[in-house]
Parts: sequence; C-alpha cells; structure tokens
Amino acid sequence: MRDDGRRPADLRQASIVPGFIGAALGSALITTGRTRVICTANAEERPPSWLTSGGWVTAQYAMLPGATSPRGSRDPGGRGKEIQRLIGRGLRAAVDLRKLNGAGGPISLVCDCDVIEADGGTRTASITGAWVALSQAIDRLLAGGRIAEDPRLAPVAAVSVGLVGEGRDALLDLCYVEDAAAIVDLNVVAVQARGLVEVQGTGEHGVFSRADLDRLLDLADGGLAELFTLQARAIAGG
Amino acid sequence: MRDDGRRPADLRQASIVPGFIGAALGSALITTGRTRVICTANAEERPPSWLTSGGWVTAQYAMLPGATSPRGSRDPGGRGKEIQRLIGRGLRAAVDLRKLNGAGGPISLVCDCDVIEADGGTRTASITGAWVALSQAIDRLLAGGRIAEDPRLAPVAAVSVGLVGEGRDALLDLCYVEDAAAIVDLNVVAVQARGLVEVQGTGEHGVFSRADLDRLLDLADGGLAELFTLQARAIAGG
Amino acid sequence: MRDDGRRPADLRQASIVPGFIGAALGSALITTGRTRVICTANAEERPPSWLTSGGWVTAQYAMLPGATSPRGSRDPGGRGKEIQRLIGRGLRAAVDLRKLNGAGGPISLVCDCDVIEADGGTRTASITGAWVALSQAIDRLLAGGRIAEDPRLAPVAAVSVGLVGEGRDALLDLCYVEDAAAIVDLNVVAVQARGLVEVQGTGEHGVFSRADLDRLLDLADGGLAELFTLQARAIAGG
Amino acid sequence: MRDDGRRPADLRQASIVPGFIGAALGSALITTGRTRVICTANAEERPPSWLTSGGWVTAQYAMLPGATSPRGSRDPGGRGKEIQRLIGRGLRAAVDLRKLNGAGGPISLVCDCDVIEADGGTRTASITGAWVALSQAIDRLLAGGRIAEDPRLAPVAAVSVGLVGEGRDALLDLCYVEDAAAIVDLNVVAVQARGLVEVQGTGEHGVFSRADLDRLLDLADGGLAELFTLQARAIAGG
Amino acid sequence: MRDDGRRPADLRQASIVPGFIGAALGSALITTGRTRVICTANAEERPPSWLTSGGWVTAQYAMLPGATSPRGSRDPGGRGKEIQRLIGRGLRAAVDLRKLNGAGGPISLVCDCDVIEADGGTRTASITGAWVALSQAIDRLLAGGRIAEDPRLAPVAAVSVGLVGEGRDALLDLCYVEDAAAIVDLNVVAVQARGLVEVQGTGEHGVFSRADLDRLLDLADGGLAELFTLQARAIAGG
Amino acid sequence: MRDDGRRPADLRQASIVPGFIGAALGSALITTGRTRVICTANAEERPPSWLTSGGWVTAQYAMLPGATSPRGSRDPGGRGKEIQRLIGRGLRAAVDLRKLNGAGGPISLVCDCDVIEADGGTRTASITGAWVALSQAIDRLLAGGRIAEDPRLAPVAAVSVGLVGEGRDALLDLCYVEDAAAIVDLNVVAVQARGLVEVQGTGEHGVFSRADLDRLLDLADGGLAELFTLQARAIAGG
Repeated sequence: MRDDGRRPADLRQASIVPGFIGAALGSALITTGRTRVICTANAEERPPSWLTSGGWVTAQYAMLPGATSPRGSRDPGGRGKEIQRLIGRGLRAAVDLRKLNGAGGPISLVCDCDVIEADGGTRTASITGAWVALSQAIDRLLAGGRIAEDPRLAPVAAVSVGLVGEGRDALLDLCYVEDAAAIVDLNVVAVQARGLVEVQGTGEHGVFSRADLDRLLDLADGGLAELFTLQARAIAGG
Repeated sequence: MRDDGRRPADLRQASIVPGFIGAALGSALITTGRTRVICTANAEERPPSWLTSGGWVTAQYAMLPGATSPRGSRDPGGRGKEIQRLIGRGLRAAVDLRKLNGAGGPISLVCDCDVIEADGGTRTASITGAWVALSQAIDRLLAGGRIAEDPRLAPVAAVSVGLVGEGRDALLDLCYVEDAAAIVDLNVVAVQARGLVEVQGTGEHGVFSRADLDRLLDLADGGLAELFTLQARAIAGG
Repeated sequence: MRDDGRRPADLRQASIVPGFIGAALGSALITTGRTRVICTANAEERPPSWLTSGGWVTAQYAMLPGATSPRGSRDPGGRGKEIQRLIGRGLRAAVDLRKLNGAGGPISLVCDCDVIEADGGTRTASITGAWVALSQAIDRLLAGGRIAEDPRLAPVAAVSVGLVGEGRDALLDLCYVEDAAAIVDLNVVAVQARGLVEVQGTGEHGVFSRADLDRLLDLADGGLAELFTLQARAIAGG
Repeated sequence: MRDDGRRPADLRQASIVPGFIGAALGSALITTGRTRVICTANAEERPPSWLTSGGWVTAQYAMLPGATSPRGSRDPGGRGKEIQRLIGRGLRAAVDLRKLNGAGGPISLVCDCDVIEADGGTRTASITGAWVALSQAIDRLLAGGRIAEDPRLAPVAAVSVGLVGEGRDALLDLCYVEDAAAIVDLNVVAVQARGLVEVQGTGEHGVFSRADLDRLLDLADGGLAELFTLQARAIAGG
Repeated sequence: MRDDGRRPADLRQASIVPGFIGAALGSALITTGRTRVICTANAEERPPSWLTSGGWVTAQYAMLPGATSPRGSRDPGGRGKEIQRLIGRGLRAAVDLRKLNGAGGPISLVCDCDVIEADGGTRTASITGAWVALSQAIDRLLAGGRIAEDPRLAPVAAVSVGLVGEGRDALLDLCYVEDAAAIVDLNVVAVQARGLVEVQGTGEHGVFSRADLDRLLDLADGGLAELFTLQARAIAGG
Repeated sequence: MRDDGRRPADLRQASIVPGFIGAALGSALITTGRTRVICTANAEERPPSWLTSGGWVTAQYAMLPGATSPRGSRDPGGRGKEIQRLIGRGLRAAVDLRKLNGAGGPISLVCDCDVIEADGGTRTASITGAWVALSQAIDRLLAGGRIAEDPRLAPVAAVSVGLVGEGRDALLDLCYVEDAAAIVDLNVVAVQARGLVEVQGTGEHGVFSRADLDRLLDLADGGLAELFTLQARAIAGG
C-alpha cells in the first residue's frame, strides 16, 4: 500500500474542468492528486518562419513560484525548456498539421501549461490537460470556419511510472515523494488506439533492464486507458 | 445601468478562497467578476541586503499568457514592474516590519500575485487578495514561533474607480471594457480604519479636477468597506 | 525653516536651459536645487505597432551612475520603469496625438530624461523639463512641414509635495533628505489651465487622510504655477 | 543499403582521440561519420550549493555556428538545454558521486561538449566522447591524490536508432538525412554490463508500437557494444 | 583650412570643468568642440575578486541616446565595451595600483564616462576628462586618510589623429565629419613625460605605411602637450 | 633563448588546414604552437540594415570553455567583443566590399573564429586563419556565380610582438607565459604588399617610446612575411 492509500496500479484522484479560463480559445484545469495545471490554447497568426506549409502546435510550460514548497523561481530554466519541448512533440503527434491551414493562412496553436500547484507528474498532467484545451480550441476554429477540416487524429495523454525504493516496486502516477525515491522514472505519451509517441525512461539513481522497461510500459497502459476516458468525459461535457 | 447590470456604486461579484494553494505558507484565490488572481505568501530567509533591522514584505505580479484575449506575453515588462511595486508598498503599510524579526533573524515575506484571468482591476484585486494570503502566512509564523508578536496593523485593500465615457460617469470597480473607456482612472489603497496608503489617479484620455477627485474618493470608500468585510470573512473561515 | 533655508511653500532654485543638446530635435537641461536632468526629444519613424492612427509620445528615464552618492547602477530596474511610464502618460496628456500625423505617416516622439545629478524630485523635474524639449521638437516638426497642425494642448508640469517628519509638515518640492524623512509623498502632474493628469500619493511610512491630501494638493498648485512660468520663459527664449 | 553504403546495423566510421585539448584536465575528440564533438572535463571547486555531500557531474552542450549548413546561432536555446541535461544524467549514472569527495571537499566535474561539425547524432556522440574525457580527468584526480577512491562504476555510451522512411526500416546511428526522414527516433544510453540509463523514443512523424520499441532496442545493443570497445581502446591508449 | 576653420594641427576649442557633479568623489565635464563628456570617479569597496593585492581602476563608457542624431540606442554594445576597456587601460597606466591600498583594504576606482553630446573623439575626450575626475577623487582619498601615498605617476591624456580624404591630409582631433571621411584613424594615449600607453591605428577605408604612422604620431604629440596643460589648469583650479 | 627554445624573431610552429569544417562555405584550422582556432566563413542573405550598397564582412570570436586552464566562461564578455571588432576590421580591409554584391543582392560574410585551445595570440591567429576561410568562401561564391568579380584585394594576416621581462626583450609571436610577462604588447595587422591595417600597442605594465614602437614593427614585418607564405600554401592546397 502506498503512503496515500493507493495500490501500485492506481492513478491519483483526477479531474479535468474544461473551459476553465473564459478568455482563452480553449482551456482546462487538470487536477491529479495535489498537482494542478491550468492549460490554455490560443491561435496565433504567425506560425514559425521556417514553416513552408501547414500549421503548428507548440507549448509553453512554467510553474507559479507558489506552486512548490519552498517557493520556486519564476525562471523555468533548463528543466522547463526540456518539458515544454516534450509537451509540444506530444501534442503535434495527435494533430494533422496540414489541416491547421485555413483561408487566413496557416495557424499556430500555442498551449500554455502553467502549474499552479506541484506534487509530481506536472509534465504528464500538462499533456493530458493540454489535449482538452487544444481540442476545445479546434472545435471553435471549426465552428468559426477558420479551418475547414478537423485536424485531430486521436486524443493524446501521458502518465508517469517508476521503480520506487529498495524493493524497486513498479508504481503508476508518482507523487513527489515517490518520484524523489524512484530508481527509474518513465514518462509515457501515447495517442489513443494508435501507439506510443514518446517514451522517456531515466535512471537517475540506478540502471534498468529491458524487463523493467516492459513491466513499466504495461503499467502505463492501464493508466493511459483511464486518462483517455477522463478526457473524453471532459470534452463531451465542455 | 452598466453593461453587466451593475449600478455605479456596485462592486462586481467577489469572493476570496483562503488556503487555495496548499504548498504555500499562505494563499488565496480572489475572484471579482471575471478577474481571478492566485495570491501566495512565502517566507524567505534572506531579506534584502540593505535592510539593517526588521523584516520586509515584497510582491511579484505577473499574468498567465492565457489570462487575456488575445494571448499575452510571459514578460511582465514595465507595466508589471510598476504594479508589483504598488502592491509591495500597499502591503508594507499594513505591517509593522520591525516585528517581522524572529529568533532566526529578519524575515522577508514574498507575495506572488499571478493573474489567471484578467478583466480589469487586476492590481487592486492583487492587493486585496494578497492581504489574505499574507495574513495566513503570518498566522503560521506566529503559530510556529518564528515570530513573537503579530506584525499586522490592520487589513489593507484596494479598489479602482473611474470617470467613464462622454458622460464622465463615476463608476466603482471597473471591468476591462469600462477601464478602456475611462477618461480618468483612480486606484485607491487603504488600511482599514487608519487611512489612505496610495492614491493613483491617471488621466490617460483627459484631465480631472479636484472635485472629480473628491467624487471618486467618496465612491472608493464604499467599495473598500465591502472588501474589508469580504477579507474578514475569508480570514475567519480560512 | 527648512535645512536649505526655504519656507514650506518654496520651490528650490530652478532653471531650464532650452536647446542644451544640439544633436537632438528638442532638448533642455532642467536644474532644481542640486537635481539636474538632461531632457531630449527625438522623432522616430516607427510608432508602436499597435497604433492604428495618430502618433505617440513615450519617455525613457535613467540615472547616470555618478548622479548619486554612493554610485548607482546603470540598470534603471523596476523603479526606472515605473517612472518612465509616469513621464510618458504625463506628456501624452498635453498633446493631441491625432495631430502627430504627417505626410510621412504617424510620428513617435521619444523623450529621454537622463538624470546627471540627483537630489530628490527627479521624476517631476523630468516631466517639467521634457515638456520644454518636446515643445522645441514640435516647433521644428511644424517648421519643417512634417506635421501640419500644432498638437500641443497646453504645457504640462509636475511637482512633489509631502508630509515630512514627526510634525507632518506639508512641504513643497522635497530634496532627498526631506524625501527620505517623508511620511507621505505626493507627485502631482497637471496640464496648465486644464486640470490634473496624475496624482500619485504614497504613504511609505504612514497613512494619510482626505484632509492631508487636500492640503498637499493646495501646496502643489502654487509650485505648478511657478513652474509653468519658468517653462514659458524657457520656451520663449529657446 | 543506406545512402552512405552502410547496412542497417552498421555504425558510421568512428574514432576517439583522447587528450585532444592539452589545457583541459580530461578531453577527447569523438568523430562519427561527419559528426565531430570536442569533449573536455574539468574540476570546479564549487559544486552546486544544494549538494549536501558527495560531488557532482554536469554537462554543457553547444554547437559552433559553423557546424551546420546553413550557419547556426550561438545561442543553444531550448534544444541545447534539453540535450545537456540528458548528457549530465547519463554521465552521473556511471559515477559514484559520493567518491568525488576529496581532502579539499566535494568536486564538481564539468563536461563541455562542443560540436564542431554536425551530421546527426551529436547528443549520443557527446555522451560517448564525454565518458573518455571524464575518465581521463578522474585518472588525473586519482594520480594527483585529490580523490582517494575511483568513482567510476562502468563506462557509459549512447547511440541513436530509428525507423526511417515509408518502409519503417530500423537503422542504427542515424546521420542527419536519415534523422530528418525518421518516423521514430530513439536515443539509448547504457552503462556497460549494468543496464539502461536513459531511453528516449520520440515519434515526431508517427507513432510506434511496443514491438517497434523492442526491435530498436535490439539494434541499439549491437551499436553500444562496439562503442564500449572504441572507448576502451581510447582510454587504454590515452 | 578645415570646415570649422581649424588648421591641420589645431585642437578644437576645449575646456574642462572640474567638480561638475557634486555627488561624485571626483568629476569633470570635458568639452571639445561639440563633444561633451561627463566623467565621474567613485571608490568602491570591492575590487575585482581576482586581485591579490593593490587596488584597481576601471572605466564604464556610454552615450545618452540624445547625444547623436539620429537618436542612439541605450545599449553601448560591442563598440562601448571596446572603448571602456581602452579607457581603463589608459588610466591604470598612470596610477601605481599598489598604492591604492589603505587601512580599509584595496580600493577600486570606477570612472564613468557618459557622453552627453557626440561629435567625434568621444573615447579620447573620455580619457582626458576622466584623468581630472580621477585626480580629484585621489585628492579626496588622500585628504580623508583612506590612502597614505599618492598613487599618481603622471597625467594621462589622449587625442585622435587621422589621414582624411583623397589627399590623405594628416589632421589633429577629428570631428565626426572628418572621422567619417578618414582613411586611417589613430588614437594615441600617453602619460606625460613618460611615454606612450596605447596606440590604436585603424585603416577602415585603406591601409597605411610606417611613414604615415610616424607623421600621425608627430601630430598627436603637439595635441597631447596642449591637453596636459588644459588638465593641469583644471586640476589646479578644481 | 626563449623557454620553448625559440629565438626572439621566431614564429611558433604553425600550420593551416583549409576546409577543416565540411559544413561551412569556407573554413580553416589554424595552429600556432598550442593555440588552435577553427575559422569558418558563411554567407548570410541579410547584410546589416544600415548598408546602402555593397556587401559586408563581419566576425565573431569566442573561446570554448575547455580552451584554457582553468576552465573559462562561455560568455565572451567585453574582451571578446573588442577582439571580434578587430578581426572584422582587418578582414574588411582586404576586401572590396562593393564587389560582394551579386544578382541576389548584397552578401554578408560572417567569419566565426572559435578558439579550441588558447596559449596566447588567439586574436592574431584568428585573423590569419579567417583569411583562409574567407578566401575559400569567396572562391565558392565565384564558382557558383553568386558574385561576378573577385572582391579580394590581397591577403591579410596578423601577428603579436612585445617587450618582455625586465630586459624589455623584443619577441615575436608571444605565447601565454610571455604575454603575461610583457611590458608592452603590440598586435599588427597588415595587407600583403599594401600596408598596415591595424596597429594596437598597449602598455599594461609600463609605457613605451617611439623607438620601442619602431623596433616592434620591424620584428612584426618578418613574422607577417612568413604567415603570408603559410596562407598562400594553404589556399593553393585547399
């Protein structure tokens, strides 16, 4: 049994509130345990200059200083850059960028993931929540006629798994205390019914075998299935 | 009647949720109409080097990019610097800094005011909400024995008033549309039952007379009284 | 009697030298006591991108490192940003921006206020001096046919007043020592014969009442009248 | 057959020149095909302030502007930050940080990986080469008596593999043209005879299955074995 | 005859006002033609950390934006860095740094050279004026007992010379128009009665011979003699 | 005899490898003693905005952190800015910028000089090596028809000379130890058979006479002759 009463394959209590920020084209508040992230999605007129056709999806990730104890810095630093690149790649894998191209030219969708409270798993929560925000933004672009075809391929979600403690227990959805005690930590991003987008396994406090990796990927599969259901309910109700 | 159905001397629908961010020493979510600000207060060991005795209270102010439509920049720029200096001065006026000095030396309290949705009045909402966060942080410093005496003088709150439109109607608590149409815009910061801390009146689209100023200050008085009540309820229930 | 022999309602010895910097379109050196500011005004081809019609007036404010004892930093920081926004708003209130629009398109006037020696009141001296520099620049734009109509509404000037010391004496035009001892400090910006543009009252070391505010505004009125005369003489002689 | 004549499981022509930079404590030039990286390792007196005991190993990664065509920027940006964090984690997994602690206190080893020419695989070449530089630095710290025990656990190396083109061919050690055509790209970092340290699989242009992942990890195994041999020869001869 | 009526070996009309900025330990306003530079010298407690004994003299150089037409940037950029390093080297050559070491430890003197109007020759005017400011600062350190021995070796001054126009006329003390037309431009820094400190000859628009160099150095000698006299008068009267 | 066995007028062992970086339009590795610099030259479409006609040649200079012992910073700082301006001026003196203008408009050539190991004389080695890189780039622009006429005037090279130690021995091509012991240090840049481009003599630890300058320039002449031969061989063989 884990400190918070969960079994190894349990997700934390999770919810997604779509449309949490009225000013944004799309938005969601995702809560998983004590981790909370505000995700917004907005369209910008100017896609990156190196794009020759089609649109783009990019992400920004930051933490409010008050999200952690002790208080953090406002500068996301190298860690923030690494995370926002991961989020951006995950979202792009779930979208047909060629269809983000309307009468007004190609569209760049910016997803801001701002962590308002952090207790582990902020990068995976950001991806799962950003998909709901992005999806709401795409619905509005379609409704407003700014794009003609739905660019969504399938939902994308992410979850963390890890081998924790001396016993190397395989645990799903690590909270901060578990993450700090993890020998191996694996973030898995997948597109529903299609396959994996990103697998990032890191052994900060030890190495891992191919068998460890298989065990962790199995565990992630179950978590992802639940998250896809949560996303679908949020989008349907949004 | 104003666009949102309010009378000239009406505040917007407002609420303060104390303890909104569990990771922070003190925190609050303040909502006034569609404007929402997360305020957190944390103690830092190192007060500014130029302080010779006593503690310090400082503020940081920023907006999430998704808080406005169109999406804003992550760089708070000159406007953000101007606002956070105003918030800091307001909070310091409500605290006896000499008493922010414990066994472990002087304490610096940092109040982060992060706007998650913006519809006018973000700087005044930040001050009103930050007081609740700061107050909760002080309660915990007292409870933990880190300071011996309560440094609070009295609550501080802030409200905006303005002369709006061709008719120069004096309105309380301007939303964004009203603010954009204001000839004169006045931010008033006061410490309950003690007096004014800051009066910042600006005529971006016109000048104003001493009589205008008096009329606006009268209007602010009523709003501040309601905000002190709202703060007291939040602190009592927090 | 004040330390420098002035009565409470006396300005410091002041002068304005128009055309102090030959390289600039407009310029002035303003001296008030030991405070000296070089103000220059120049036209830039590119007004801010968000302007849809009409011109713009903006300000930059900085202090030379040698202007203070001990030596200051070259980075104007948050304080500098706050001050230059105040200067910019004050100047814009005295100009009809729609008329800053010539055959070559809208014109952006940049006023640089560089403090070469600082003894209190640098922000108000900057506004008063920048008006003379701006006025000279406008004369040259008119003479050169770059704008067709005079955009000046009326002169703008500024002065500081404060309640100083235990006796809360109301004093005009605070020098640095008085400013450091001020309970309340009020900066007043006004357009001649039209009204107030900006009123910024701050109680860093105490609060203030509506009666205090009235008393200080009365005191400012007298100082502003003298400064308008000084400006007029400088402009006539420039 | 690949464009450069290699079979799918072939590494590019590779070499490691140890001691390439005489000024550094440890160094190596690694060449793999047209990719070349200068790796240097130096000891710094000041480990990160948050370390309570033991030493640290960190990495910096950059590209010379002339390393790519067209010329690149000197700012490594988000991509550079992501890569140098990966390199640092890989190297730390191969070192017992507690033993980086000598008479003079804990030691921080900084590995600079500067790409002088880039043709794909710069991050994996950086790790493989940095190990040789780090190893030489550790030999000198031991020889000089600055540390008492050898902190090396086992060599660490890295290689990229990918599924390329419409046929989703599994290829080892992608050059730039192959990398640009990859559906899935996987970087694998391993400690010899111990296990995996980092597995980063990304589907920028498509998703991948568990079976794809297995096939790619098998392919990486062969490449890593060759790289460990290359490192051993370089270290023996250095 | 030059455009401003000077003969080839004539300096521009020049003056040095010592003590121009009362807030600084030492200061001077140097005017040469339309070029004007405010020089201040201040003592800082903390000399550079790499100094093992003795004090230090360093310089900062910047231009006010209004000093040139068109208006310049506030960022001194690479040109400013290059110039301030030249000024610093010149001043250090005139001072025995070992004697900048008092009871309170080594002293670092910072000379700020801020150009308020620029018409060529700002770097050489900065050196010549900074010596007067530095000299006044040293007098005060001696008078205040902060240093025991006079660290001055002899005055340092600087002048520009150049070969101008198609005729390659050798001219002393170039104004901006002459500088822009110069084939070769030479800055000469010398310590009175001791020798040269710095000779920087540049052929931006052509090359130069050893004979050209000799001719220019002869011309500089005469200008430097006059500048040493001007400095001596300023210091005597200051 | 010098520490490394050289006579006063001997260059260090030197070589230039042209085409060292295949990705660049032009490149060279220059080695002189233990100093090594990678020079690359690339064409950029956008010359500086202030150019009205003709092309431009500019330089960037940096050191890898591992190039020095102790490890250096990645920020080139003021010293780097000063050096890259010197390199740029030297290269421009050897090129007719009007001829850097093709069918596609004016061309800006950027020469990156990255020091991979530093033992004195990095700025002069950068100029000498950059000429070979630039020359290769120009050959390719001519071969590709991007420019019609050869813009090269003649080769440019640079060398350092100095008066070293108590005996003020005049030495050619100072290594780091000699440079640190130099009373006077002179960098000489010349265009073959045309004349001097830049003469920068600095007395950091003493002054120098006109006779000293002559003696050093004579010594430089011999070194430059050898370097022009080395360049010619490299360009012929490249």
